[in-house]
Formats: sequence, structure tokens, C-alpha cells
Amino acid sequence: MEKIGEGKTKEVFLLDEDHVLLKFKDTVTAGDGAKADVILGKGVLNAQTSAIIFRLLEREGISTHYVGMKDDRTMIAKKLKMIPVEVVLRNIATGSIVKRLPINEGEIFDPPIVEFFLKDDARHDPLLNYHHMRYLKLMEEGEAKEIEQIMFKVNEVLRRVVTNMKLSLYDFKLEFGRFNGRLMIGDEISLDSMRVRDPESGRILDKDLYRRGQPLEVVKASYSEFFNRLTQVV
Amino acid sequence: MEKIGEGKTKEVFLLDEDHVLLKFKDTVTAGDGAKADVILGKGVLNAQTSAIIFRLLEREGISTHYVGMKDDRTMIAKKLKMIPVEVVLRNIATGSIVKRLPINEGEIFDPPIVEFFLKDDARHDPLLNYHHMRYLKLMEEGEAKEIEQIMFKVNEVLRRVVTNMKLSLYDFKLEFGRFNGRLMIGDEISLDSMRVRDPESGRILDKDLYRRGQPLEVVKASYSEFFNRLTQVV
Repeated sequence: MEKIGEGKTKEVFLLDEDHVLLKFKDTVTAGDGAKADVILGKGVLNAQTSAIIFRLLEREGISTHYVGMKDDRTMIAKKLKMIPVEVVLRNIATGSIVKRLPINEGEIFDPPIVEFFLKDDARHDPLLNYHHMRYLKLMEEGEAKEIEQIMFKVNEVLRRVVTNMKLSLYDFKLEFGRFNGRLMIGDEISLDSMRVRDPESGRILDKDLYRRGQPLEVVKASYSEFFNRLTQVV
Repeated sequence: MEKIGEGKTKEVFLLDEDHVLLKFKDTVTAGDGAKADVILGKGVLNAQTSAIIFRLLEREGISTHYVGMKDDRTMIAKKLKMIPVEVVLRNIATGSIVKRLPINEGEIFDPPIVEFFLKDDARHDPLLNYHHMRYLKLMEEGEAKEIEQIMFKVNEVLRRVVTNMKLSLYDFKLEFGRFNGRLMIGDEISLDSMRVRDPESGRILDKDLYRRGQPLEVVKASYSEFFNRLTQVV
């Protein structure tokens, strides 16, 4: 099968005119790829976690690229024309926003904050406004507004699930693409792209463990625990 | 008279309940204040340049804080409640945007790009989106949209004048405040806050001369030339 793309954590193969296979790799990276490691089994965990969440979203009427699973680390997905933008929704302040703006760790955003970042490792994924996105032919303002509404809907679904797991959803990142001109969620939804913490102890369950230098076994155990707890509530 | 504020290039004195005096200093700074010098006479040039432009804008029905001049470097202005945001409109790409985004020097923005930056030297004036501005209680989205429309109107007026001077307006920065709840343009409009170049030779007339290390006499001569040419076309 023809490989038509490869990112830091996934390979993309052409299945047919309208479909691709997304094979989740065991790599984990941070700092725009500056730090990278292999965690055996991570690809399977993220593929399975993503599959569960995509099915949940589809059930709620939110369009995603998810079609099914070919094997435990390979997703069958609609072949989207991806928009090279990362869309972030923040419920609780942590990460880049507390460095960039006069906002403290732990501040609550209600309503949540949505941000668009250009996928550009060399430029460290710069923040975009509607004007930039129009000029760079990424999306028109109307489409950006539509994506913001989808982000809010996804947030409701994810928060419900994560709350049922007795955890707290700090933020998440989605990537969007177009299928026959229609906007859909692509890529993955996993602990690589969501920040989830224990609301009591503050314990981190997501990729921040890796960003902060925790041993790879600790990262893997946490991803595994999250997946197991997720399967118990859905 | 009570001094109620001082920035990098202006002192603010309370005149009465509704008015202030803005005394333009001879300082020139760049790099969020990292670089600073004194150019004797620059304060007068920027005060006079700003006064001419504010009068032009008022004549076009655009609200500014400008009331009149007390002396050659001191402006009488409405006492605005300033919004600590710099609003930039770009016609031609140069400066921070070509470093931040995959955009090359000299690319033309049509329609222009508008950006909002938090005034925060320590954080190097980070870019803001509507969500950030709402959360930080700087302005609501509706007000941001209103400011964008004012930016476009100011751009039309400034471009007309600068074109009459046989020069090209690359970009400009405005600051806004509220007077009895109404949005108005505050601060100054001078070569410290506009980028103006000769369209034929590319010669720079604005503060980029200083940013790029030209001698202070060259900077002063250019500000002086711009003021003289401006007085000839208005």
C-alpha cells in the first residue's frame, strides 16, 4: 500500500480514493520535535483511545474522519484535505498560555478560550487570528467560527466522559480537514492532544508527564490507566 | 500640574476632570525598551505630526482624543481610559509578521491584516485573539470588530495622505481608549508608530531607521523631512 504521508507519530497509507489508513507509531515527541523517544505499545493505546472518542463524537452528531479499525494500531479514516492548523480549547490555564499571557496556572476559562496555531515546527506553531488564516488561505472567518462551535460541542462531550472518570479536562487540541468541502475532525484525540489531571491531587495523566521528564514507563502506565478507565465509563 | 502617568516617550499631566496634557519627550526606544536614546527635537516633531494627523482624522469623522496644542510638544487631549492593547494594521509585510509567520517581506495584504497585541514589554507584546481579549477584560468581540472598522477607515485616510507625499504606508499602530464609554483613538500617530517607505527606492523614513542602527542624526533628519512633506500636502 502506498505511504502518502508521515508525521511525528503516525504514518498515512492510501486505502482507496476516499480513505486512508492511519498507523499510530510508538514515538512520543515534545518541544516541536526537539525531544523524541519510543514507548512500545503507545501507538496501540493512542489508536484505541482515539477510536473510542471518535465513536463517541460521531454518536453525538459531530463529524470526524473515523471509519473503523483495521488492526489494533491502524485506523481506517476518510481521506481529508487537512488544514495545517492546530485548534486548542482551554478550560483551565496551563502550558503555553501561562507563559505567553498574564494568566496564572489553574485559572478557569468560562467560557473556554479557543486558539488557532499554524502547524509549523520551525516557527514554533505561531498563534493565528482570522486575518492571518484568511491571508494564508487556511480558512475564512466563517469557517473559523464554525470550527469554534465544533470545539465547544466536543468540549461538552469530552468533559462529560472525563468527569465520569473522576478526572478534569484542562485543554485539548484538534486538527480539521475537509471531505468533499465539508469540515471534519481528523488526526487523533488522545493523551498526546488532551491535558487531563486528577482534580483532587493534581496528578498529571497526559503527555505533560513526558514533557516534564518523567520516565517512559510512567508515561506508558498513565496512558494505559487512562485507556482502561475510559473503557469502563463508555 | 499633577503628573498622572509616564510612558517611554510621553508624560501625562492632569488638566481637568476630562482632559490631560501629553508632553512628548525626546526619547526614542526600540525592542520593548531594550534600546533607548535621546534625539533633541524628536518630541516636537512627533507631537506636531500627530496633531496634523489627528486633525485630519477628526475632519473625516473619526473620533480621537485630540483637542489642541498647548505648546509645540504638548497636546491637550481628552482623558481616555486607555485599553492596554496595540492595534496594528498591515498593508505590506515587514517587521514582526515576517518573522512570526511564513510571509515574506514586501507581500501585499489586500484586504489589510489587523492584529491586536497586549502592551506588555516583559512578555514582548504577545498577539491576542478575541477570546483572550474577552477573558482579560480588555474588550468584547463586538468592540474589537468596531476597532477593526476604525482601523480600515484610518488606513484609507493615512494612505491617501502618504500617497500624496509620494510615499508608501506599510503599516501603523494605534491605541484606543474609552471616553464616557465611547471608543476613541488615543496616544500618537507618528513615525514611531507608522512604517513609511519610498515606493521607488525602498528608502525607510520611519523608526526602523533607529531599530536598524542608523545614526540618530539620520533618524532626526528623516522625521523632520516627513513632517515638512506632510505640511505641504495637508
